[in-house]
Amino acid sequence: MFDRTTMELNVIPLLRSALQEDITSEDVSTNCIMREKCLGEVDLMAKQEGIICGLQVFEAVFTLLDPETQVKTYVKDGDRIQPGQKLAVVRGDIRVLLSGERTALNYLQRMSGVATHTRQIADLLEGTGIRLLDTRKTTPNNRIFEKYAVRVGGGCNHRYNLSDGVMLKDNHIEAAGGVTEAVQMAKEYAPFVRKIEVEVENLDMVREAVVAGADIIMLDNMDHDTMAEAIRIIDGKAEIEISGNVDEKKVEMLRDLSVDFVSSGALTHSSPILDLSLKHMRRI
Amino acid sequence: MFDRTTMELNVIPLLRSALQEDITSEDVSTNCIMREKCLGEVDLMAKQEGIICGLQVFEAVFTLLDPETQVKTYVKDGDRIQPGQKLAVVRGDIRVLLSGERTALNYLQRMSGVATHTRQIADLLEGTGIRLLDTRKTTPNNRIFEKYAVRVGGGCNHRYNLSDGVMLKDNHIEAAGGVTEAVQMAKEYAPFVRKIEVEVENLDMVREAVVAGADIIMLDNMDHDTMAEAIRIIDGKAEIEISGNVDEKKVEMLRDLSVDFVSSGALTHSSPILDLSLKHMRRI
Amino acid sequence: MFDRTTMELNVIPLLRSALQEDITSEDVSTNCIMREKCLGEVDLMAKQEGIICGLQVFEAVFTLLDPETQVKTYVKDGDRIQPGQKLAVVRGDIRVLLSGERTALNYLQRMSGVATHTRQIADLLEGTGIRLLDTRKTTPNNRIFEKYAVRVGGGCNHRYNLSDGVMLKDNHIEAAGGVTEAVQMAKEYAPFVRKIEVEVENLDMVREAVVAGADIIMLDNMDHDTMAEAIRIIDGKAEIEISGNVDEKKVEMLRDLSVDFVSSGALTHSSPILDLSLKHMRRI
Amino acid sequence: MFDRTTMELNVIPLLRSALQEDITSEDVSTNCIMREKCLGEVDLMAKQEGIICGLQVFEAVFTLLDPETQVKTYVKDGDRIQPGQKLAVVRGDIRVLLSGERTALNYLQRMSGVATHTRQIADLLEGTGIRLLDTRKTTPNNRIFEKYAVRVGGGCNHRYNLSDGVMLKDNHIEAAGGVTEAVQMAKEYAPFVRKIEVEVENLDMVREAVVAGADIIMLDNMDHDTMAEAIRIIDGKAEIEISGNVDEKKVEMLRDLSVDFVSSGALTHSSPILDLSLKHMRRI
Amino acid sequence: MFDRTTMELNVIPLLRSALQEDITSEDVSTNCIMREKCLGEVDLMAKQEGIICGLQVFEAVFTLLDPETQVKTYVKDGDRIQPGQKLAVVRGDIRVLLSGERTALNYLQRMSGVATHTRQIADLLEGTGIRLLDTRKTTPNNRIFEKYAVRVGGGCNHRYNLSDGVMLKDNHIEAAGGVTEAVQMAKEYAPFVRKIEVEVENLDMVREAVVAGADIIMLDNMDHDTMAEAIRIIDGKAEIEISGNVDEKKVEMLRDLSVDFVSSGALTHSSPILDLSLKHMRRI
Amino acid sequence: MFDRTTMELNVIPLLRSALQEDITSEDVSTNCIMREKCLGEVDLMAKQEGIICGLQVFEAVFTLLDPETQVKTYVKDGDRIQPGQKLAVVRGDIRVLLSGERTALNYLQRMSGVATHTRQIADLLEGTGIRLLDTRKTTPNNRIFEKYAVRVGGGCNHRYNLSDGVMLKDNHIEAAGGVTEAVQMAKEYAPFVRKIEVEVENLDMVREAVVAGADIIMLDNMDHDTMAEAIRIIDGKAEIEISGNVDEKKVEMLRDLSVDFVSSGALTHSSPILDLSLKHMRRI
Repeated sequence: MFDRTTMELNVIPLLRSALQEDITSEDVSTNCIMREKCLGEVDLMAKQEGIICGLQVFEAVFTLLDPETQVKTYVKDGDRIQPGQKLAVVRGDIRVLLSGERTALNYLQRMSGVATHTRQIADLLEGTGIRLLDTRKTTPNNRIFEKYAVRVGGGCNHRYNLSDGVMLKDNHIEAAGGVTEAVQMAKEYAPFVRKIEVEVENLDMVREAVVAGADIIMLDNMDHDTMAEAIRIIDGKAEIEISGNVDEKKVEMLRDLSVDFVSSGALTHSSPILDLSLKHMRRI
Repeated sequence: MFDRTTMELNVIPLLRSALQEDITSEDVSTNCIMREKCLGEVDLMAKQEGIICGLQVFEAVFTLLDPETQVKTYVKDGDRIQPGQKLAVVRGDIRVLLSGERTALNYLQRMSGVATHTRQIADLLEGTGIRLLDTRKTTPNNRIFEKYAVRVGGGCNHRYNLSDGVMLKDNHIEAAGGVTEAVQMAKEYAPFVRKIEVEVENLDMVREAVVAGADIIMLDNMDHDTMAEAIRIIDGKAEIEISGNVDEKKVEMLRDLSVDFVSSGALTHSSPILDLSLKHMRRI
Repeated sequence: MFDRTTMELNVIPLLRSALQEDITSEDVSTNCIMREKCLGEVDLMAKQEGIICGLQVFEAVFTLLDPETQVKTYVKDGDRIQPGQKLAVVRGDIRVLLSGERTALNYLQRMSGVATHTRQIADLLEGTGIRLLDTRKTTPNNRIFEKYAVRVGGGCNHRYNLSDGVMLKDNHIEAAGGVTEAVQMAKEYAPFVRKIEVEVENLDMVREAVVAGADIIMLDNMDHDTMAEAIRIIDGKAEIEISGNVDEKKVEMLRDLSVDFVSSGALTHSSPILDLSLKHMRRI
Repeated sequence: MFDRTTMELNVIPLLRSALQEDITSEDVSTNCIMREKCLGEVDLMAKQEGIICGLQVFEAVFTLLDPETQVKTYVKDGDRIQPGQKLAVVRGDIRVLLSGERTALNYLQRMSGVATHTRQIADLLEGTGIRLLDTRKTTPNNRIFEKYAVRVGGGCNHRYNLSDGVMLKDNHIEAAGGVTEAVQMAKEYAPFVRKIEVEVENLDMVREAVVAGADIIMLDNMDHDTMAEAIRIIDGKAEIEISGNVDEKKVEMLRDLSVDFVSSGALTHSSPILDLSLKHMRRI
Repeated sequence: MFDRTTMELNVIPLLRSALQEDITSEDVSTNCIMREKCLGEVDLMAKQEGIICGLQVFEAVFTLLDPETQVKTYVKDGDRIQPGQKLAVVRGDIRVLLSGERTALNYLQRMSGVATHTRQIADLLEGTGIRLLDTRKTTPNNRIFEKYAVRVGGGCNHRYNLSDGVMLKDNHIEAAGGVTEAVQMAKEYAPFVRKIEVEVENLDMVREAVVAGADIIMLDNMDHDTMAEAIRIIDGKAEIEISGNVDEKKVEMLRDLSVDFVSSGALTHSSPILDLSLKHMRRI
Repeated sequence: MFDRTTMELNVIPLLRSALQEDITSEDVSTNCIMREKCLGEVDLMAKQEGIICGLQVFEAVFTLLDPETQVKTYVKDGDRIQPGQKLAVVRGDIRVLLSGERTALNYLQRMSGVATHTRQIADLLEGTGIRLLDTRKTTPNNRIFEKYAVRVGGGCNHRYNLSDGVMLKDNHIEAAGGVTEAVQMAKEYAPFVRKIEVEVENLDMVREAVVAGADIIMLDNMDHDTMAEAIRIIDGKAEIEISGNVDEKKVEMLRDLSVDFVSSGALTHSSPILDLSLKHMRRI
């Protein structure tokens, strides 16, 4: 779960903005058929198997509209759910249930989709000792939700954004004039609290990165034997990250290599949603 | 393309917010290696076949950071692109190119992903006379981008949000006490400029909706023969929408039915991105 | 009344902004004479006859400043009130009553002014079957309040803004190259959920609009007989709107014409306020 | 004219918000008929006699949408205009002219309405030496525009808001325990830069206010002879304000009284708009 | 204390912004070690002697994050505190106590620093009849806190900002063409509610200011005898302000001069903080 | 200098807010004496010796108000300046120069104050190999300016905020149940890109921190010999930070200890400003 501070400062403002995107003056359909407060309940139902994620956000959408709305959940983030399973009951003013439904589900389905996808990949890696990382390839204005969903699905978070981590990629290295120069400039500009990660493409760059004192070395697009040699060169002096899509074949290839992390952009940029719906609206 | 007004009022504020999500104080990596303005160029390259969409947004991310950045494009929104194709050149302060890269690509890849997916489905429908609609199942705070991408991919937009269309679904109808009552209440509350759409589940509801004067009737989850009968009952007195995922089999089924529209949530909630990248950064 | 969702998302932010316009650092006068919380009551009194409108907004101004403020009302929106009538009692910290007074009254007086004016015109139309519409000629940043007041006064709302309705006026038609072209382009761009309204100036345009399939035709500045002929041409194939100020003479003229709607900008742009005040502040 | 600083910090943000109220996603009608930039011109025409006010705001609405829009004016704020007079030409992308038209006119018509009304009252006062003041009875989120229009119409501004002036009204005086106490508390709390104004209802209060050292005394609801006596008591030791609606009869009554200021809420809360329109849209 | 209105409209938004500056996604350290709510307490301890100021703001930082947080205070704003003194206990979710600690202390230490410094200077002035004023030389986006702290420390506030007071300094006078012209232009532009202050550098300017009718005259950088002569010239016709840093020597010099106010920028721009800390965190 | 991206996303919004704090409706004094644009120049003069810092921010305040304002500088950030030295000339609309003066100077003086103070401390440390760090004890809503000023003065930045660094202090350690547990929990929650810093109070904690694998160890309040022993225990396995105020005596004590960093809150929370002013306003 998000802690209260994160909810208040970083989550709620985005939910508010999403609701305002969906309701620029009023929910006309709901106001057509119901002009007074009317208590009711509706069930949150699973339509697919997967990992549920985002129940707190789902709830916050409704309580932002009306603090008296109550959400009773039968599962918790990270649980595997089955089609037809009743996941929660939302109780409150039916008008609020109708007006918040779509935004609440849009968040919940997307976050559960990311968690489900991450769980699949994390399971593939099980037993290898390699941990799964996300990237900054997230949906704009949704990073906090997607990074959280990766954690719920069993992955770890790479840096949150450009301000909280140093990662020197090909373009930085080229601009700096080489790996050695880039790492040195980073150590001078950001000498403290931040680890320095370097993306390398060949063994010469690996050697340079180790000598320059990089904290993390990312091996970009190398074949098995080059990676093995790179790992031998690094020899525990830096953490090792592999990037790229992860499938069974890739995991097989990595099995005998002692890399620490593998990162995957697809977790956040290409996960389909997990299908969920609100059903059985009833007055109470 | 978005018109200037939409860009200024509704697009730019979201881009700004997305950039602030990625850069909360500074781009540390870039500032490590480059402390002064330095002119350069980088190429936007396709890595997959698909429909490109969002070039104006891609450009606006960079010009928001620095109005002097120039983007020269070789394709336009809606064009089919091929792996390895050079799509554009971005020219400006290399620090701006580095800092804006991820946000610009996150938008462009997602919008192109939606357009590519939509194009596939729209192509399936070709020759049937049925038009493809999107839904409100969009990514929070990204609706304006995703609805646009649907249009670029050959689809049409359903209502933009809860404030600009009346759509009476099962829960509304139940709350109103029936189709007739719901439509009547809608006509009373919103008598003007807005069409009234009703979602129906069986032929009795179809009959009621027609008599009540619904402008659009959405046939939910009906088999072929029920739909055929519904269409016969409606007899041109309302437009007809079918909902649900569209695949070849479904298109086959719809081929002899004169429905006007089919809507698909998957266009916006489950399209994978289209893979693109910035390559060949160089000083000039 | 506004529903909770509209209050939270679309009304409260405007009230907050209005209060900040009136109190940029502190209410100096109140702080001069009262430095501690002090419970009190004040009466909301009518000084003119008219239709009261906006009590919920009036209350929200005070509860936004202090949720413990209580407003007990003796009338409800839409009621006709008389000079000297006590409409409500506001109870809470006297400092809050003093600081919120002006903003609360500014809203309430304006909304009641619009409702009172609308009621007068709506009464004129009684028995004609013609419904009264507002326009987009509202006070900037006050549309949601003024459109609501029109409804309370017995009018109906035309489209809310440029994003939720298609209305093709002289300048659009000219730009498109004619009525037929304009309607056709609209049908192509916005084929769904939105009705298409066309403003016409003569009978040729009426004929074109009917053939092109406009949903609503607005007869601009026509004399009685031309309108009669226009109505005959339209023959139920589109709804009919007449624009322009409505007075007794105009109503007389419209009495034998079967038009559906008449719209009036004056309802929102030129209604004088209804005079109200807070009186009898007392400690309790 | 507003100075640049006020425009940038205090005016433009309100214009932006007003435009976003009118265009929550896009101007559908304009986008239907015109999908590319297209240069054109339109004339700003007067339809009523009155005082024009707000040309700079009118222009800023268009240039906010597109900085390349040009407005050529033939009159300036404060000029008396006649029906049929061409006041300005707006040149730019026709789509921008269409999308900004209503918001630009809503401001211009309202500001001109206030200026016209103020001019009428100020003219009545001519030769009396009495200056005309506005109040805080302005339209929420429009104060800066309405206070400016009062100045253009020949009035003066009373305090801008609760934070920049001390005005002790009946409720403050009652809370403080009397005029003497209230003025004393104000002098203690706000001893500097702010004048202290007191509202008094009878001659005893006048005497107290003078002795307590009020800077401005507002005579509330007094008949001619009581005012005359009050003025004699004040004897130049404070400035004098009279409140209430100003008409010919009232001016006659005030003619032999040496009051400094008369304030009127109606200037801002009940002025009808001045009718203006954009006509003759043409491509260039 | 700030009244509720000021807190809600003008203080809380700044606290929120300060917290978002410190927590852009989450408090990583706290979330590392505590993933569930856990009740606890922590003591607010003084580490230096001085005047405490800002307890309400200190509390509001925590309650903004979690309304259930409770702050029990043993002192009140304006009290002199001693090193080692326990000032308050904060009770609530330990995660909230940890996440809010720095921001709450940053405000409280700064405000107490300003109050302590002001108290020292105000004490120096005791018995002279001269009152101490602050200036607009405040920390950006912290004026409301610093002006309040000056009051708590025994000073008075000069104008709050450029919008609520007229102060004609050298550059204004030069632009106007002289003291007489400047005062006259001010009286014409801002004839009401605002006092007019003029900064003068020599006796000729003093004479001009008095004749022109300035309400406040600020003697800039004059020696004792010139000030004495200036005071003789002013002769009670305007209030008198002296500017510049105040120390024992200066107070000695002012002792026999009947000036009303002395202003000091250093109160807000150069006060060191008062050292405070949160200690003894414990679960409960 | 701040790069363009940081200026646009993170600096300008704060400057805008600071200007709105100082000008809530208009700069009355300036508008009194100058109602039309009028070109002029003014000199930025030093009144004290110190390190200048913030020239870019100083300029941005004016160009935000009017992009045509030009600032010509004769020094650059980090330069030592002398009393009486002309530092820059600002040229533009005199009204803009007057309205922006205070806000521009408030930033420049504060930033220069921090840089000057930092330079003094950094000079003390010269030759020791110890680098100087700032803290999060910054002025609310001014962190980005103060952290920059520390760098300009020769210091380094510790973490920017709670979201971009892990620092386990006494309260975290206590909550976790010990140093070992705290570090382990941090490694599990934030395994990547972020270094883990632990604050320790005695040698047992030092040993635990080393074994647990802390990246940085902060020695809190230790005497010389304990520090020496701690350093021996750490033996290069972690970076070492000392906290607390730095003066000549402390530097002497640290001279023979191989610590890497010393941090000081006073740099940002208690630096007096550097005195600067705008002089010689002249028309051109």
